[in-house]
Amino acid sequence: MIMETCSMCTKWNDEPGLRIAELDLCYVMLNRDQFFHGYTFVITKKHVKELFHLDKKTRETVMEEVNRVAEALYNLFQPDKINYELLGNMVPHMHWHIVPRYRDDALWPRPLWAEPHPERTLTATEYAARVEQIREQLKAQGEQTSWTI
Amino acid sequence: MIMETCSMCTKWNDEPGLRIAELDLCYVMLNRDQFFHGYTFVITKKHVKELFHLDKKTRETVMEEVNRVAEALYNLFQPDKINYELLGNMVPHMHWHIVPRYRDDALWPRPLWAEPHPERTLTATEYAARVEQIREQLKAQGEQTSWTI
Repeated sequence: MIMETCSMCTKWNDEPGLRIAELDLCYVMLNRDQFFHGYTFVITKKHVKELFHLDKKTRETVMEEVNRVAEALYNLFQPDKINYELLGNMVPHMHWHIVPRYRDDALWPRPLWAEPHPERTLTATEYAARVEQIREQLKAQGEQTSWTI
Repeated sequence: MIMETCSMCTKWNDEPGLRIAELDLCYVMLNRDQFFHGYTFVITKKHVKELFHLDKKTRETVMEEVNRVAEALYNLFQPDKINYELLGNMVPHMHWHIVPRYRDDALWPRPLWAEPHPERTLTATEYAARVEQIREQLKAQGEQTSWTI
């Protein structure tokens, strides 16, 4: 189900410059704010609110996709920790925040929401390079049924 | 592996009053701070840092346990959203924060870390009642191999 009033339902179409990969059940998109280097979203294609609203097999596939993205970011950027967050208080369409955290990031070791920070945007060329870098890492890491972007 | 210097490795032993249930791979424990009504931890028995450090089958089981707890809290307390967070910047032993969020909680719809809040502690009787309530909901919800607590 796609809800036209949901910003996560339309994000893949709305922000082509942030598209990393289309997996079986999720879209992988770079966060526009790169204050945390490599901050990426894993967004279910389907408009679903909670993990337990998925059937078991679907949930397992979604979590494997979340896991694969986390591993790719870890291997690529060598952060000290990955933070995985499924919130959805504002936009109740499942989107995982996969956030590489570094000992030298401004908020370490506190949660990324612990205080406001200035948004760090990149140039179009820089976005494209970072997207490509993550996409290549994902590809290198395993088989993928769909890479249409 | 149990690391004696890790507070998550010893939490089950250290805080018997917060024990909800022992599942196959995780301990379920109430957060001492009940500012968010029903805030619960799902803690792997094993000292492991990242999701992708687990083999696939183990990861699936852990996530099913996380899911089961989230569903129990949702059914029991009827929050508006469940927040699922795996951080571990301070204590890199996998512990999921499973946090019921309510439209009338003080920080809604912002992340629970958006600003500091006073800790809300309960009396021993209240802790015991809340623990029992969640445990009974978990039991009612599905088969469980181990309920030793």
